[in-house]
Amino acid sequence: MEVREFQRWMEARYGKRDRRRGPDRTFCWFVEEVGELSRALRKGTREEQIHEFGDAMAWLISIGSLAGIDAQDALERYAKGCPKCAASPCACRFVP
Amino acid sequence: MEVREFQRWMEARYGKRDRRRGPDRTFCWFVEEVGELSRALRKGTREEQIHEFGDAMAWLISIGSLAGIDAQDALERYAKGCPKCAASPCACRFVP
Repeated sequence: MEVREFQRWMEARYGKRDRRRGPDRTFCWFVEEVGELSRALRKGTREEQIHEFGDAMAWLISIGSLAGIDAQDALERYAKGCPKCAASPCACRFVP
Repeated sequence: MEVREFQRWMEARYGKRDRRRGPDRTFCWFVEEVGELSRALRKGTREEQIHEFGDAMAWLISIGSLAGIDAQDALERYAKGCPKCAASPCACRFVP
């Protein structure tokens, strides 16, 4: 599945509810999912980890939709080289 | 671009560095990017918003890779129906 296809699927299924909730509260929900992912990675089952990862991705994509950001476009720009250092692979994605 | 393709591209480019940094510190970096996205949505330019959205997506995908989660598989499971309420569209994704 293409990222764009998933984003469109999300918009068709949840777009109306997401717009009613608004970008700020949707961001809050996303952050809640980030917390759930953290907990699942620490002590969850494999199924819970995959589930929470999918939730976090889905809510992040909803944030993109509400902001009019095409998720695939954003990823493709990322893949073209780091926007900060203009290198690919990015030279500023250091350890740590 | 398929989600899986992007995840493989990320692994090839950043996998070694990500593994050296480890899952916990990588999660910290992801959360930092979530903060930057929040700020960009509030007062950033269009370019900054797209950039920070791409960063947040990319770091979330790195977390998935470190946990052995296939991002595309996770999204496709999500698209098959909410794992909590087993309905598609999800009936538990309420407003707010």
